Amino acid sequence: MAVNLSAPDAATLHPVAGVRIGVAEAGIRKTDRKDLTVLLLDEGSAVGGVFTQNRFCAAPVQVCREHLLQGGIRAIVINTGNANAGTGEEGLARARATCAAAAKLLQLAPAQVLPLSTGVIMEQLPVERIEAGLPAAIADAQPGHWLRAAEGIMTTDTLPKAFSRQLQLEGATVTVTGISKGAGMIRPNMATMLGFLATDATIDPHLLPQLALELAEGSFNRVTVDGDTSTNDSFLVIATQQAQHAAIASLDTPAGQALKQAMLEVARLLAQAIVRDGEGATKFITVRVEGGRDAAECRQVAYAIAHSPLVKTAFFASDPNLGRILAAVGYAGIADLDQTKIELYLDDVHVATQGGRHPAYREEDGQRVMKQQEITVRVGLGRGRAADQVWTCDLSHDYVSINADYRS
Amino acid sequence: MAVNLSAPDAATLHPVAGVRIGVAEAGIRKTDRKDLTVLLLDEGSAVGGVFTQNRFCAAPVQVCREHLLQGGIRAIVINTGNANAGTGEEGLARARATCAAAAKLLQLAPAQVLPLSTGVIMEQLPVERIEAGLPAAIADAQPGHWLRAAEGIMTTDTLPKAFSRQLQLEGATVTVTGISKGAGMIRPNMATMLGFLATDATIDPHLLPQLALELAEGSFNRVTVDGDTSTNDSFLVIATQQAQHAAIASLDTPAGQALKQAMLEVARLLAQAIVRDGEGATKFITVRVEGGRDAAECRQVAYAIAHSPLVKTAFFASDPNLGRILAAVGYAGIADLDQTKIELYLDDVHVATQGGRHPAYREEDGQRVMKQQEITVRVGLGRGRAADQVWTCDLSHDYVSINADYRS
Repeated sequence: MAVNLSAPDAATLHPVAGVRIGVAEAGIRKTDRKDLTVLLLDEGSAVGGVFTQNRFCAAPVQVCREHLLQGGIRAIVINTGNANAGTGEEGLARARATCAAAAKLLQLAPAQVLPLSTGVIMEQLPVERIEAGLPAAIADAQPGHWLRAAEGIMTTDTLPKAFSRQLQLEGATVTVTGISKGAGMIRPNMATMLGFLATDATIDPHLLPQLALELAEGSFNRVTVDGDTSTNDSFLVIATQQAQHAAIASLDTPAGQALKQAMLEVARLLAQAIVRDGEGATKFITVRVEGGRDAAECRQVAYAIAHSPLVKTAFFASDPNLGRILAAVGYAGIADLDQTKIELYLDDVHVATQGGRHPAYREEDGQRVMKQQEITVRVGLGRGRAADQVWTCDLSHDYVSINADYRS
Repeated sequence: MAVNLSAPDAATLHPVAGVRIGVAEAGIRKTDRKDLTVLLLDEGSAVGGVFTQNRFCAAPVQVCREHLLQGGIRAIVINTGNANAGTGEEGLARARATCAAAAKLLQLAPAQVLPLSTGVIMEQLPVERIEAGLPAAIADAQPGHWLRAAEGIMTTDTLPKAFSRQLQLEGATVTVTGISKGAGMIRPNMATMLGFLATDATIDPHLLPQLALELAEGSFNRVTVDGDTSTNDSFLVIATQQAQHAAIASLDTPAGQALKQAMLEVARLLAQAIVRDGEGATKFITVRVEGGRDAAECRQVAYAIAHSPLVKTAFFASDPNLGRILAAVGYAGIADLDQTKIELYLDDVHVATQGGRHPAYREEDGQRVMKQQEITVRVGLGRGRAADQVWTCDLSHDYVSINADYRS
């Protein structure tokens, strides 16, 4: 089902010096399922994170935010099968118990452990099963287990998602490897998008929070399947500081830029993989909005298009239904938008100009583009020089089936 | 398909003194179809209107706004089959030509005519067919033709929508009769929600704009099928001033309140009928949010729930998937929302308390409510005393089919 996405080849996923990964079957919700993953980080690693803006955020997200402020993170524990969201004080206590259990086994302080959960909402986390499974997960830890981790964090994803790149910094080879999961911005009960990006680059730890934010802005914060924001969305960026190059003291230096660019490329692939594996997706759509006064209003218009059920069903039907896209531009909330300045392209086909149908536009040209698996919608607002883009998928019968039948 | 909605009985639709209605087949898009409707108003009638907030508003909406400012409206011309939206200057000229043609036949000024269009977007209005059809529509005009009008403005609605009420004001019988059309906030190409509400009440014409706005706020502005706002949405309120009671000089007088209440009741039934006949709808859902600091934030939360594809598919599946509703509350955009104060009810069943599952909640109780055709979701925010509500429907396979197959 996934659009131009296949399972990663383990040989293409470079290990990251300083990161070991282990996976175990803890029986959290179902048996015979790898549902517990640990990432063990060497001492000296730096971690930054970006989390859901949902006010109903899950207990593990709250604990992650606390622990990241203290620094010194050495282990990340990820469970599927239960999101530990909507679980109140008891849920917080169970997320802390997960950290305490891992810390005890690894001889760390509990605050050096980050807990992440994905799965059913509003049921208490069976923390005793996590505690029981942790020794096996830790014993399994190897640097080469990235694909295993990508599989371990899957819920209803149809494919594991992992990408890797290497770059040269001052003669040193620096690796960037990441994994993600999620097939909607929120899954029915199996809530959550999770993303992990690790590098062995040597970089001032104080830069990590900003780096995580900038990477998320260029990747995970630009994808949408259904507009629903999960209670558990988390993106962690890890730098183990083991590559032999001069420490990066600023993201604006040439080395900082090169590293950020390589990380952004991997983060974008991971984020786009979530859309490609989106619930019921049959098409991958880039919505690019140009000519705005600022990037924020371009995003606003792009999201209005990307979230419109009418636009999304038109993509599913390969129907070049221009009116739906223009109507979404119109209700995106830009109060002083001048409709006579709107331009619209489907890939290279100029379909609307000055707010009306382009005189040279022929329906069969629009139809040809709409039949593709990958489509770029480009809108010109004619108000300025800013641009931004989001990535999304179509809305198909399978989306309804998946979400209507999920718990039945 | 429509949820608890049947075709109106013509005998229940009271004529409104001062309003005559005629319908004709003008062949605007298809033959053998009543696609042209005129409402002829006696001299002295007052009209107020509320129109789409979509910046890509249609040509007839722009002309209506102009003409309403001048007052003295005597005729309303409504065509289906073509929305005259996204048609630029030429579209404006054609909307004006419609007014000129009706004015000539009726010996009025063009500014005394309001044009309304619904149908395909981005194609020029075949105004010559409207001109050719107008004599027959005008010749057909009768006070008793309300059901005929409700049928004449239908596009892909499965049922005509019309309601009527009478009230006593100072011994005089006052009639309120209205019609509406629409089966989504926007139809694929057949864009548009239209609503018309007429009364013979005698009321200061200056009150009409405010009355139209207040009625829309309590009715048409509280329904959503898919969150898409049409380019053509229009709601007109007509007062013919023929009922024999002392003129209403303020909406705050007892007579003003009584009239507004009767009109609101009809407007609400007309608006709810659009949801009941919503594309693919199998359930009618009231989302009520209480305990907000103001009504605006209650609406914001209610719309987040009503627009969530995950919530809507859960209703379709009769699945009491509480996590989806709570997640929507969380991402509705209230920055300082305290999740530990959230209460959630499905009809009378208390499903969540203090942001977590209610200890006494049993899945079978939620299931029982979710299986109903009419469901009330009630959310308590625990922040204040304001409340508001919206009405919506579920998201079904038929919604995707209707919108994916519409132009094929």
